[in-house]
Amino acid sequence: MRRFVSTFVFCYYKSYVVTQNIQTVKKYIVHHPWKIIEEGYKPELNRISESLFSLGNGKFGQRGNFEEYFSGETLQGNYLGGVYYPDKTRVGWWKNGYPEYFAKVLNAPDWNGIRIKINNQELDPHRLVITDFSRYLDMQDGSLNKSYTAQFDDGKKVKIQSTRFLSIVNDELGAIKYSITPLNFSGDIEVILPVDGDIKNQDANYDEQFWNEIEKSASARAPYLIVETRKTAFRACYAMHYSIQGNNKSKSLTQFDTIEKPKYIAHKLDVGIEEGKTTTIYKYVAVVSSMYHENDDMKEVAAEVLAYAKHKGFGKMLDEQKAAWDEKWNRADIVIEGDVAAQQGIRYNIFQLNQTYTGQDERLNIGPKGFTGEKYGGGTYWDTEAYLMPFYLSTSKPEVARNLLIYRFKHLQKAIENAEKLGFSHGAALYPMVTMNGEECHNEWEITFEEIHRNGAIAHAIYNYIRYTDDKEYLAEYGLEVLIAISRFWAQRVNFSEEKQQHVMLGVTGPNEYDNNVNNNWYTLRMAKWTMEYTQESINYVKNTIPEEWRRIATKTSFDEDTELKTWDEICNNLYEPYDEKRQVFLQQDGFLDKELQPVSAIPENQKPIHKHWSWDRILRSCYIKQADVLQGLYFFEEHFDQDTIRRNYDFYEPMTVHESSLSACIHSIMAAKLGDEKRSYEFYLSASRLDLDDYNSDTDEGLHVTSMGGTWMTIVQGFGGMRVRNNMLVFSPFIPEKWESFAFKIMFRNHLINITIDKSNVSIFNEADQPLEVKIYEKYYTIGANGTVLVDVLDKE
Amino acid sequence: MRRFVSTFVFCYYKSYVVTQNIQTVKKYIVHHPWKIIEEGYKPELNRISESLFSLGNGKFGQRGNFEEYFSGETLQGNYLGGVYYPDKTRVGWWKNGYPEYFAKVLNAPDWNGIRIKINNQELDPHRLVITDFSRYLDMQDGSLNKSYTAQFDDGKKVKIQSTRFLSIVNDELGAIKYSITPLNFSGDIEVILPVDGDIKNQDANYDEQFWNEIEKSASARAPYLIVETRKTAFRACYAMHYSIQGNNKSKSLTQFDTIEKPKYIAHKLDVGIEEGKTTTIYKYVAVVSSMYHENDDMKEVAAEVLAYAKHKGFGKMLDEQKAAWDEKWNRADIVIEGDVAAQQGIRYNIFQLNQTYTGQDERLNIGPKGFTGEKYGGGTYWDTEAYLMPFYLSTSKPEVARNLLIYRFKHLQKAIENAEKLGFSHGAALYPMVTMNGEECHNEWEITFEEIHRNGAIAHAIYNYIRYTDDKEYLAEYGLEVLIAISRFWAQRVNFSEEKQQHVMLGVTGPNEYDNNVNNNWYTLRMAKWTMEYTQESINYVKNTIPEEWRRIATKTSFDEDTELKTWDEICNNLYEPYDEKRQVFLQQDGFLDKELQPVSAIPENQKPIHKHWSWDRILRSCYIKQADVLQGLYFFEEHFDQDTIRRNYDFYEPMTVHESSLSACIHSIMAAKLGDEKRSYEFYLSASRLDLDDYNSDTDEGLHVTSMGGTWMTIVQGFGGMRVRNNMLVFSPFIPEKWESFAFKIMFRNHLINITIDKSNVSIFNEADQPLEVKIYEKYYTIGANGTVLVDVLDKE
Repeated sequence: MRRFVSTFVFCYYKSYVVTQNIQTVKKYIVHHPWKIIEEGYKPELNRISESLFSLGNGKFGQRGNFEEYFSGETLQGNYLGGVYYPDKTRVGWWKNGYPEYFAKVLNAPDWNGIRIKINNQELDPHRLVITDFSRYLDMQDGSLNKSYTAQFDDGKKVKIQSTRFLSIVNDELGAIKYSITPLNFSGDIEVILPVDGDIKNQDANYDEQFWNEIEKSASARAPYLIVETRKTAFRACYAMHYSIQGNNKSKSLTQFDTIEKPKYIAHKLDVGIEEGKTTTIYKYVAVVSSMYHENDDMKEVAAEVLAYAKHKGFGKMLDEQKAAWDEKWNRADIVIEGDVAAQQGIRYNIFQLNQTYTGQDERLNIGPKGFTGEKYGGGTYWDTEAYLMPFYLSTSKPEVARNLLIYRFKHLQKAIENAEKLGFSHGAALYPMVTMNGEECHNEWEITFEEIHRNGAIAHAIYNYIRYTDDKEYLAEYGLEVLIAISRFWAQRVNFSEEKQQHVMLGVTGPNEYDNNVNNNWYTLRMAKWTMEYTQESINYVKNTIPEEWRRIATKTSFDEDTELKTWDEICNNLYEPYDEKRQVFLQQDGFLDKELQPVSAIPENQKPIHKHWSWDRILRSCYIKQADVLQGLYFFEEHFDQDTIRRNYDFYEPMTVHESSLSACIHSIMAAKLGDEKRSYEFYLSASRLDLDDYNSDTDEGLHVTSMGGTWMTIVQGFGGMRVRNNMLVFSPFIPEKWESFAFKIMFRNHLINITIDKSNVSIFNEADQPLEVKIYEKYYTIGANGTVLVDVLDKE
Repeated sequence: MRRFVSTFVFCYYKSYVVTQNIQTVKKYIVHHPWKIIEEGYKPELNRISESLFSLGNGKFGQRGNFEEYFSGETLQGNYLGGVYYPDKTRVGWWKNGYPEYFAKVLNAPDWNGIRIKINNQELDPHRLVITDFSRYLDMQDGSLNKSYTAQFDDGKKVKIQSTRFLSIVNDELGAIKYSITPLNFSGDIEVILPVDGDIKNQDANYDEQFWNEIEKSASARAPYLIVETRKTAFRACYAMHYSIQGNNKSKSLTQFDTIEKPKYIAHKLDVGIEEGKTTTIYKYVAVVSSMYHENDDMKEVAAEVLAYAKHKGFGKMLDEQKAAWDEKWNRADIVIEGDVAAQQGIRYNIFQLNQTYTGQDERLNIGPKGFTGEKYGGGTYWDTEAYLMPFYLSTSKPEVARNLLIYRFKHLQKAIENAEKLGFSHGAALYPMVTMNGEECHNEWEITFEEIHRNGAIAHAIYNYIRYTDDKEYLAEYGLEVLIAISRFWAQRVNFSEEKQQHVMLGVTGPNEYDNNVNNNWYTLRMAKWTMEYTQESINYVKNTIPEEWRRIATKTSFDEDTELKTWDEICNNLYEPYDEKRQVFLQQDGFLDKELQPVSAIPENQKPIHKHWSWDRILRSCYIKQADVLQGLYFFEEHFDQDTIRRNYDFYEPMTVHESSLSACIHSIMAAKLGDEKRSYEFYLSASRLDLDDYNSDTDEGLHVTSMGGTWMTIVQGFGGMRVRNNMLVFSPFIPEKWESFAFKIMFRNHLINITIDKSNVSIFNEADQPLEVKIYEKYYTIGANGTVLVDVLDKE
C-alpha cells in the first residue's frame, strides 16, 4: 500500500513511515506494565493522546475524546465496524479499471458527551485552569480514566473524575461514569447529555456529510437517535440511559429539558452539587447497527441493551469487563521482565489488536488505523494476511483467523470481477489492494494494477492457517476455490519470453514500493510459483480425501484439469528467476544491478526519510528499498532456502533498506534473529515496539498503526522466540535480548495453551493442556506432558 | 504528453488519439479548396462546427459560437493569448516535486453577442424553425460567414446573414456584420449588443470563476468592460462600437437602453425593420489586454482601435484582411490538384496554424488546441519543438521560429529551478512537460519526472533552427546557455552501471507513453548523447568565433571546462545503447524483447483503441507502441543511419504501433516515404490530413488538434516532397501520391522563396529570389537561377 506524505494542501493521504528522527519522539507516556498513563495537562499533545486512549470492542470504537466540550486541538472519532461510505475519488489521471469510489470508514455519531456549565461557563478544559490532570488507559479492563481539577473564571473549582469503557461482554454498550466534586462552593450546575450525529469526516474528499437522520426522540423513555449513511444505507441507532447520584436538587431527574437539533438529541438537567461532596453521572449508550439487526428491531434491541446496563450497574459491568479481558490476556499476554517500557509497548499492541478485531464477524477486517482514526479509509490491505494473521492464529481460537480467511472467500466473486475488468478471464481473481466490501478502492496504476503480490499473500494465509491449525477441511470448504482463482490469475499474468525462453512477469510492483512497474520482481514470481504448486497440492489433497467435494469445486469453477494443471506445471517448471551469479543473490527485479548500489549510510541525514525529500523518480532510480521485498519472500518461504542463501541476501539487501514503512522492521528483526544477529534484531524491535506510544513517526495524532502492531508481536514470538511451525510441530529457537531479564509469551496451538518463558539461563515451556505436546527446541525434540514443563538450557542454542 | 479519455465523471482530460473508427467519422463538411462549408442546420453537430469555425489572429481567438443566443449544445469559447489562470490541481497521490497548479487557458469575456427579440421571442436558432442554413469559413480572408432563415412562433420569418472576423491587420479588433431581413412582416425588433465577462471554464477543476470585474460603463461613448484574472492579475479591456444601417425607426441610435450586470454590459435598442429590406448591424469590439498595454492606457488604446474601425469601415477592413492573408498564403500555400478533400485538408491546417501563432511575441506559444477549446489547459508541450518548428521555419520569416526558441530561453531559469526541485544541481535544466510560464504544470510522476526526452527536443530545435536558417549567432546570443543546461541535466541523469560497465539511464518514459518508467529508452539515450556532443561542438564554435561571448557565457553558467567537458566525453564514449544483435534493431528499452511481440493486427477490432479498452498495466505490458519512439530518433537523426538500419527498425516497430496519438502518423508517413513505401506513406497522411474536418477522433467538439496540424504539413513537405536540409542545402526526393495530379508547396529558405511543384512527370522548382540557389534533387545537384526554375523528371528518382 502506498501511504503518502501530505506535503501539499490537496493531498489527502499521510505517510505511514518510520522517520527514525529520535529528536522529535514525544516520550510523555509514563511507563507502567499495565497502564498507559498521561500525567499533567498537555493540550498540545491532545490529538496524540486521543489516539493512544482509543477504545474498541471489535464492533465499535472511538478515539479518546473528552466527554467535556473541548475547544482545543481534537480529532473527534467514533467508528462502527463494517460501516463505510463510498467517498468520491480524487484522481487527476483516470485509467481504465480504476474504482469509482474510495471507501471511507465513517465518523459515526458521538455518544460520549457530558457537557457541564457552571455559572453559565462551559466546563471546557481548554479555557479553564486545569491542575492535577491525569489520564490512563487500563489494559486490564479496557477502561479509560481521567481526573483533574478545573478552576472557572469566577474562581469556582471542581474535581472531575471519569471512567469510560466499551463493553466487550455486551458489545453494543458504551458506559461512562462521570464524577464532579465542587471544592470551594455549593450550587447548581447545568448538565447536558447528548448523542450527536451531526459529524463529518476530516479527510472526506468533497466535504460531504455522510449521515442522514432517520428518526429521533429526545423525550422518549430512552432518548434515541437513528441515522443512516448516504448511498450505503447503513443504519445506526443510539439510545441513552443515565442516572445521577448525589444530586441534591429538589427536582427529580424526570424534570429535564429535551433538546432536539438536526441529527442531535440531548437532555439538559439542573443538578445541585455540594462543596466537598461528589455527584456522579452514569451515562449508558446502546450502539446498535444494521450490520446486526433489522431496521425495525433496532430500537427494541437498544432498549434491551440499556435494560441490561441498568440492571447490572456500572461497577458490576466493569468487573465483568475485567474478567473478560483476563481471559484474553490469559491466551495472549507477553511478559517482559527487566524492561517496563518494552512490557508496556508489547501489551499495548496486544491490547489494541484485541480491541480492533475479535474474529466474531467474518464481514469485518482490520483497517490500518482500526477504530482510532480516519486515515487510509479503514479498508483492508494485505497487512491482514501478512502481518496480522500470525498474531490471531496464535492468540485466539482458530475461528478468529478462519474468519479472516472467510472474509476473502466471500469477496472471491468481486475479485474475479476485478480481474475481468483488467482483461483476465476464466475465473482468475485479483484481490484488491484496498477494499471494504471486495471492490477495489485504490487508484494509482502502479499499485492498483501492479502490486499484485497481495494475491499471493492471500493464498499464503490459507496455507499458513492450515499449517498452524491442521484444519485441512478448510480447503474443501472454502480455501481451494480461492487458491484456484489466484493461480489462474498468475498463469494468465505471466507471458512467455521468446528472448529468455522462459515465462516472465512484466510490469509489477513488489512490496518495496520504492520501485514501480518493474519486470520480474523475484518476490512476486516466487509467490506465483508457490501458489500454483500449493494449489495443485491442495487439489490433489481434496481429490484424494473428499472426491465428491473436488467434483463440486471443479464443477463450480469449471476447472479443466487437463489443460489448467498442465499449464501451471509448464509455467512452474520454466519460470524465470532473476539471480545474480556473482553475488549469488536473488535479484529484486530485472535491471536492479544497473542501479548505483549504495548503502543507506550514504544518504545525508538531512535527506531522510527519502520519501519526504526526494522526487519520486529519484527514489525509483535509487537502490533504496522501502521494506522487505526479496527478504519478505525469504521470510515466507524460509524453509526452502539454506541459511547461507538467506544470509547472502540479507547482507546484500538490508544495507540498502531505508525501512520507511512501519511493516519493515518486524521482518528484518525476525531475519536478523534467524541469522544470529541478536543485537540487530533487538534494534529493529525497538523501532517498532513503541511506535505509537512514543509517537516515533510524528503521526500518532491521526490514529494508531494498528496493522503494524501484529509485526511487533511477530518480532518477539518469531524473532526472539524463534517460533515456527514445521511438520505439524512447534519449533523454537529463542534468545533473550541483553537488556531483558526474562520474557514469556503464551500461544494457542491446536488446543494446547502453551506458555514459553525465556530467561538468561533457560527456556521453559509449560503445556497447559491435558494432552502432551511434542516440540522442538534448538533442534532437539521434547515431549511436554499434559500440564507439564520442559526446561532447556539457553546454551543449547550454540 | 499524456492525453486521457474521460470515461469517468471526475476525469478532466480527454484523449488525443486517432480512433480509426471510420464508421463514426462525421464527414459533413462540404469539400471546397478554400472554404470550410457546413450546409443545412445541424444543431447536433454544433460543438464540432464551433471548433472548426474557430477564428484567431495570434493575439486572441474564439470558437465559432453563434452571435445569437443559442440554447442548444455549445461550448462558448474566447481566449486571449498568454492569459492563463493557475487552476488548483486535482491529484490523489501527491509526489515531491509536483507543481502546485495546473495552468488553464482562460475562457475570456464573450464579445460576439448580437441578441435579437421579435415579438418578445428570442432569436434562438435552437427554438425556431431554421431553413436554408449554411456557414462557411473563408480561408482566404479568415472570415466566418453564416446565413439562414428563421421562422418565429408567430409565423414571422427573417433572413439572417452574418460575417465575422478577427483582424490580423489591427490585431486587437474583432468585427461583425450582421444583417437581418424580414421576409413576411415589418415592425420593431429588440437588439441587445453585449460584452459578457460572466463566463467560466467548462473544465475548471473546482468550478471557480477566474475573472473579477475592475471597471465598466455601459453608458460611456464607447461602452466598455474591464476585467482582471484572479491570482494572475491579467487585465483585459473590451470596448464596443456599433452602427446600424437600415433602421427605419424614428428614434436615433443615441436612444438606447444600457444594461449593466456583474461583469456584463450591453446596449438595448429598438430597431425598425421593413419587409424585404435588409437592416445591418456592425459591431466592432476592441480587445485590449495587459499583455501589451499598461492598465492605465487600456481604455484609451481601445478607443483608438474603435476609431480605426469606424474610420475604415467593415468592407475596407475585410479587404485589407484578405490582402494580409494573401501574403501569408503566398509564403505558405500548398496546392493539391486532383483531390479537393486533400486540398481543403492541408489548407485548413495551414490556416489554423497561422491563426494560432504569428511569432510576433516570444512570450506566446502554441497550445494543443490553440484558440479553439479549453482542453489540455493551453500549455506548451514538446509538440512545438518536434512537430511545429518545421512548419514555421519554412513558411515564415526566421524571427517566428526564433521566437519559439526564445520562449524556452526565457524559461531557462525556471527549468533550472525545476531540475533543482528534483535533486539536480549546478545549473542542470529540466524543461517542463507542460507549461505556461516556464513552471511545470503536469503531475503524473511517470510523465512529469520521467518523460525527460522533451529536454532533448528543445535542444534539437535549436540545432534545427540553425541548420535551416544558418543563424549561428543565435548560439552565442541565446542557444548555448540552454544547451549547456540541458547537457548538464543529461550528465547528471545517467549513472554508471557496475554490472554493464557503461553509463545507463534508468526510470524514463519515452515518446511511446504506452511504456512507463523503463530503463534505457534508446530514444532518450540517443537524444542525451547527441545533446552533449552538439553542445560541445557549439561551445567550440562560439569559443573560436566569438571568444569574448564564450567567456561571458562560461562565467554566467559557471562552466568548468576541464571537468564538465571531460565528464560529457566520458559519458558519450561509454553510453549504453540497447540493441538486439539478432534482429539488428535498436531496442526501445531494456527488456522490450521479454514482451509478447505481436502485430497490431492481433488486437481484436472491438478492443481498439486499446487505451479505451485495456487497463493501463495491460497496455504497459504489451508490445504496443502509441507513437514513434525508436523511429522518432531515426527521424531526428536520419543522417546518422543507413537506409537498411532505418528499414529494419521500421519493419520491426511499425507493425506494433497502434498510432493512438495524432502525432504518430506524420513521422511514420515520412519514414515510409523515405523507405520508398509510397502507398503506406499516403495512408498515414490520410489519417491525419482531415483529422478535425472529418472529426476522425470524435473529439473535435472540444477543439482542434492544433499542435498535430504541423505534422500534416511535414508529411507533405518532408514525406511526399522528401525535403531536407543537408550541408546548408535544400535536398528533395519527391514522389506524388497516385490519386493526385500534382501538388506544390512554397517554402522560405534563407531569403529564398521557393515554389516546388510535383506532378506525374516532373519536379519543378521555382526560385522567386534574386539570388541563385543550389539544391539537390534525387541525389543530383542543381543551381536554380534568380527567378529561375529547374525541371527534373520524376523518373530520376529511381
